[in-house]
Amino acid sequence: MDAAATPVGITDRGFTLADGIFDTLLVIDGQPLLTEAHLTRLQDHARQVRIPLALSVADLRKAALTLIQKNGYTKGRYALRTTLTRGPAPRGLLPPEPPTPTLLMTIQPAPAPDTIPPIHAFTAGSTRRNEHSPLSRIKSLQYGDNLLALMEARDKGGNEAVLLNTAGHAACATAGNIFIREGGKLITPPLKDGVLNGIVRETLLRQTETREESLTVKRIQQAEAIYITSSLSGVRGLSSFDGRALPGAEDPFLKEMITSLPQKDAA
Amino acid sequence: MDAAATPVGITDRGFTLADGIFDTLLVIDGQPLLTEAHLTRLQDHARQVRIPLALSVADLRKAALTLIQKNGYTKGRYALRTTLTRGPAPRGLLPPEPPTPTLLMTIQPAPAPDTIPPIHAFTAGSTRRNEHSPLSRIKSLQYGDNLLALMEARDKGGNEAVLLNTAGHAACATAGNIFIREGGKLITPPLKDGVLNGIVRETLLRQTETREESLTVKRIQQAEAIYITSSLSGVRGLSSFDGRALPGAEDPFLKEMITSLPQKDAA
Repeated sequence: MDAAATPVGITDRGFTLADGIFDTLLVIDGQPLLTEAHLTRLQDHARQVRIPLALSVADLRKAALTLIQKNGYTKGRYALRTTLTRGPAPRGLLPPEPPTPTLLMTIQPAPAPDTIPPIHAFTAGSTRRNEHSPLSRIKSLQYGDNLLALMEARDKGGNEAVLLNTAGHAACATAGNIFIREGGKLITPPLKDGVLNGIVRETLLRQTETREESLTVKRIQQAEAIYITSSLSGVRGLSSFDGRALPGAEDPFLKEMITSLPQKDAA
Repeated sequence: MDAAATPVGITDRGFTLADGIFDTLLVIDGQPLLTEAHLTRLQDHARQVRIPLALSVADLRKAALTLIQKNGYTKGRYALRTTLTRGPAPRGLLPPEPPTPTLLMTIQPAPAPDTIPPIHAFTAGSTRRNEHSPLSRIKSLQYGDNLLALMEARDKGGNEAVLLNTAGHAACATAGNIFIREGGKLITPPLKDGVLNGIVRETLLRQTETREESLTVKRIQQAEAIYITSSLSGVRGLSSFDGRALPGAEDPFLKEMITSLPQKDAA
């Protein structure tokens, strides 16, 4: 169906209370990447927020392939988003028992990697990520803090931000995980710091020698390189952080990290 | 329009990213209460999250009255909700400039105060409220943490929860502000503790002798009475907290607090 003609009800709890989760995965030349990891995580996050998801990973994968084919999106890069909400409900915070969840899968063109502008990031000062909430480790619909951080970065002339948690440790970028290089070694913050278990992050942890360690702003500011990872953009090097120039796309380690990511689905 | 037949687009940022705010006010016998306070706050919160709201308080009040009259809701209690989102947008976190906001006003029956069951509340252990985020003081669409706390309370046999902030101080209930009585005096947590500036809270601060003070769980557990305030339910006394019995509706101070709230709109 055409997105403009596909509505969601105004009593849907995804709309009224941000009561839902989602996943975005990359489709290249008709093939969705890392579907097993993405859709297993979606099921796991659904369980954590107690939204029933009756479909198996195989069902979801089939739906994704159907959506790709019906749209004729068999060449090029596309973003495939799966949204799961607790569905329509009467007024009030208490969820209906049982709920009638809304499951929505959408697809749209994703930018080619070489058209994405250099990343100039700043430490977010306007808000913090709440590592005390399980939602900091769930891809929930709640992107308000990330948005505040991004708007702040834009005010400063940047286009990305690093969010700190309430303890002052780095958690993530506004739409991706962060990695730094320090003494030639890769480091990324642990999940307990309020970090989403990003699929690219997990892949890099398996495929590269990366330490999980809490990171202060000072350490990030002094890093040899800073990377942001996301399913749509893979790994990207920052061109500057808090005004200090960084290697960006010219980083010699970047290609190695990128080639450790699958370009075809193993599933 | 009928709610079931009134859709919102699936690209609306209120649905995709919880990028919006709302307000709920009480309508009694066709009269919306405290509209000036409610709609001024909506405008203020819209400004804070930078969603343009072209309508004045008078415009919004007129829309509310029209909605009440068109539905013939001139007798009884109704909940009038105004939702403002950043509107439809292409994929991605960066907001479109300028946005085309979605403004939605809905009305539905609100329960009569004497039909609301006794409140049995528990301290939420599953999540914390993030006082480091401006959104903790904004009525944003993000109700995920409140929902986790409510589901936890329900698991324990209760129907309400008190959320602590990341410093361990009480912030609020899942759908209302909290007040305690200690040595005969009323106390409520300050906004800086991650507290929404509830309209009933503000009214009680003006009309009663209430101190703003950070509250530990221990102090709440030892309080003579605990109250939850919200626009739809006014002031209500807890019947128990963390398993300890409390005066509930039988509290002698409760009537005094309730009568300090307006039953007609001063606007």
